[in-house]
Amino acid sequence: MEFSSKLLENAVNEMSQLPGIGKRTALRLVLHLLRQPKEQTNDLSKALTQMREEIKFCKSCHNISDVAVCEICANPHRKTDVICVVEDIRDVMAIENTSTFRGLYHVLGGKISPMDGVGPHDLNINSLVEKVKEGEIKELIFALSSTMEGDTTNFYIYKQIQELEVITSTISRGISVGDELEYADEVTLGRSIVNRVPFEASLKM
Amino acid sequence: MEFSSKLLENAVNEMSQLPGIGKRTALRLVLHLLRQPKEQTNDLSKALTQMREEIKFCKSCHNISDVAVCEICANPHRKTDVICVVEDIRDVMAIENTSTFRGLYHVLGGKISPMDGVGPHDLNINSLVEKVKEGEIKELIFALSSTMEGDTTNFYIYKQIQELEVITSTISRGISVGDELEYADEVTLGRSIVNRVPFEASLKM
Ligand SMILES: [Zn+2]
Ligand SMILES: [Zn+2]
Repeated sequence: MEFSSKLLENAVNEMSQLPGIGKRTALRLVLHLLRQPKEQTNDLSKALTQMREEIKFCKSCHNISDVAVCEICANPHRKTDVICVVEDIRDVMAIENTSTFRGLYHVLGGKISPMDGVGPHDLNINSLVEKVKEGEIKELIFALSSTMEGDTTNFYIYKQIQELEVITSTISRGISVGDELEYADEVTLGRSIVNRVPFEASLKM
Repeated sequence: MEFSSKLLENAVNEMSQLPGIGKRTALRLVLHLLRQPKEQTNDLSKALTQMREEIKFCKSCHNISDVAVCEICANPHRKTDVICVVEDIRDVMAIENTSTFRGLYHVLGGKISPMDGVGPHDLNINSLVEKVKEGEIKELIFALSSTMEGDTTNFYIYKQIQELEVITSTISRGISVGDELEYADEVTLGRSIVNRVPFEASLKM
């Protein structure tokens, strides 16, 4: 792509670093900004920079938060002895949306994926195991994507805690195998939490 | 969508102002930035702001440029008496890419579209008519989209200059090179029959 302006080329190049945004889409987005008032570009830039600089992760569940302990962990009405283990904060949002779960979460920050160079130590697994070792948690619900990486991650965590006094379950496979959790409709997702099955049973399926 | 962080919500909202970017996609993009080094977000924000603040439009053809007169207009090897009229700088880039045109361009900045509230005075039409009135231009090539708005815009400009000493042409419409005939829409196919070219001429293309 030949650009008539370095400023334009630079903006398109930066925009096309984003996943799923090719050069053509980036150009379309950037030209759109040029047709809008300058404030829109300034607001976008400021919102992104401010978020990147100032965002915090809950020190308990690793959910994104503006304060040290997130709203969910700080809510006295939530059950503190049931933990739903998820990959990503989008999964927290999706499950919260179903209003079926009143426990707490633990956000792993991804799943074990040797292909992508993601090992167990790149994820928030140790802090989860430590939490379980404290002995207050009755149940861990694995709510990871129904993919090989999700299964591997579930199993890795399960091995770390199987000797401890904790029930493990996985959300029921109402969600199609291979599907990303965040794209599930909320009825299916809600049902899959209500119908969760013991983790050991899920291994035999 | 319920967010656990105002900073995140704000970034997603600003991102989803972009055309074709819904809230879910915006969230995916923003979470991606959170996983990348801070520099990536800073570079993106800076590139967008700098572009929006400093970009110029060529005072002759309205192409995007970092200087007052764009590279194409400033190139002494281009023919100055043939002007290709386009909607958008993306069309300049697309045509330049074909290496078939050695004249100059005139970027209208859109097409007449009453539905979208775009009238002739929102476009760079007056400066084109003035350019033609100077009498140096031999040919105007209309290279607008083959849509009702494109046709309306072509015709509007044509009416302003039809009394002047200038040849007007439009780029030919037909079946894309490499396309199967059966998949072409019938309007295109019809036009390609009406605008057929002598076979001997087609051999030289
Ligand atoms: Zn938390
Ligand atoms: Zn120019």
